[in-house]
Amino acid sequence: MRKGEQTRAAILDAALDLASRDGLEGLTIGLLADRMQMSKSGVFAHFGSREDLQIAVIAEYHRRFEEEVFYPSLKERRGLPRLTSMMRRWVQRHSREIASGCIYISGAVEYDDRPGPIRDELLNMVLAWKRALIRAAEQAVAMGHLRADTDCEQMIYEARALIFALHHDGRFLKLEDAVARTERAFERLISAHLPDPVLSAA
Amino acid sequence: MRKGEQTRAAILDAALDLASRDGLEGLTIGLLADRMQMSKSGVFAHFGSREDLQIAVIAEYHRRFEEEVFYPSLKERRGLPRLTSMMRRWVQRHSREIASGCIYISGAVEYDDRPGPIRDELLNMVLAWKRALIRAAEQAVAMGHLRADTDCEQMIYEARALIFALHHDGRFLKLEDAVARTERAFERLISAHLPDPVLSAA
Repeated sequence: MRKGEQTRAAILDAALDLASRDGLEGLTIGLLADRMQMSKSGVFAHFGSREDLQIAVIAEYHRRFEEEVFYPSLKERRGLPRLTSMMRRWVQRHSREIASGCIYISGAVEYDDRPGPIRDELLNMVLAWKRALIRAAEQAVAMGHLRADTDCEQMIYEARALIFALHHDGRFLKLEDAVARTERAFERLISAHLPDPVLSAA
Repeated sequence: MRKGEQTRAAILDAALDLASRDGLEGLTIGLLADRMQMSKSGVFAHFGSREDLQIAVIAEYHRRFEEEVFYPSLKERRGLPRLTSMMRRWVQRHSREIASGCIYISGAVEYDDRPGPIRDELLNMVLAWKRALIRAAEQAVAMGHLRADTDCEQMIYEARALIFALHHDGRFLKLEDAVARTERAFERLISAHLPDPVLSAA
């Protein structure tokens, strides 16, 4: 990386950290310049505006999410192994994020009523991940790993719900059993959709 | 109600409205005075500080929540009828709140990292409701309406998860099927814990 790229990456890293803690709306060029021991104009040289910076933070968050959760799961066998890998890695990522925060979830609350490019960017990322999960569930049905009559949209709705609960109970209520409860619930959800009731009971 | 009490109730009503839209942190005496066409000192005469006001808003929100969701459910027969009434009324309340917002859920994101009296108040309310749900599930087990080996804490974790998903998908993603998906998932959750597998299949 050239020097300019290195600086940009370092600013982005600090911005991601601040936004995870204080929300995307809490992210200001002033705070970031402070943290980086740079001038505000130094930060503006890399990101034209606060909004550009916020959008870059969302894109970087998504890049890391994909790198940690999605791409390693694509190496798993198509069908149930891939779907469970996506969920397992998602839970793992969240259990680490309990200390810092999740930009997707806090962003959903910050931007639910606030239209504009930041909301659009967040929405695109959240919908892309939701589609990827549904596709993985559909492949699991196609491979015969899940029952043929599985409502994949419904199943993924319920799977995603567990992550919201993990975030809430882990981060707000500070309950230590939230990860274990999420994993147990996910196993129950999968079991309920296995094709053979004998397998399902095991 | 005396005149002073009426004014206080009207301020609280407007404050609840603002906090649902902008979050508890978005609630300021200035905004509220504006909305009420009162002076700031007029608002301060009823609420000693911004923090007092925020705490009064949480208490009022909880009072309405109980009035709408909890107390009518207590009139239902103890056991499964009461538990399903609590969930059904909670879903109904949320489906109306999709337009305005839920102080418990937005508050959890605002105060997850911010200790103090507001976080404590929110936490107490959320935990009280969680305990009430678990108690209703335990009663349903005791009455034989749910299987004797039901893990009530786990079951209520999964039930609450569905409400978080309803809020997220309804309010951020603006998905119209979120209420129907939540109801379907809740039925599946109950079915999975019914004592008789024949009933459960029906």
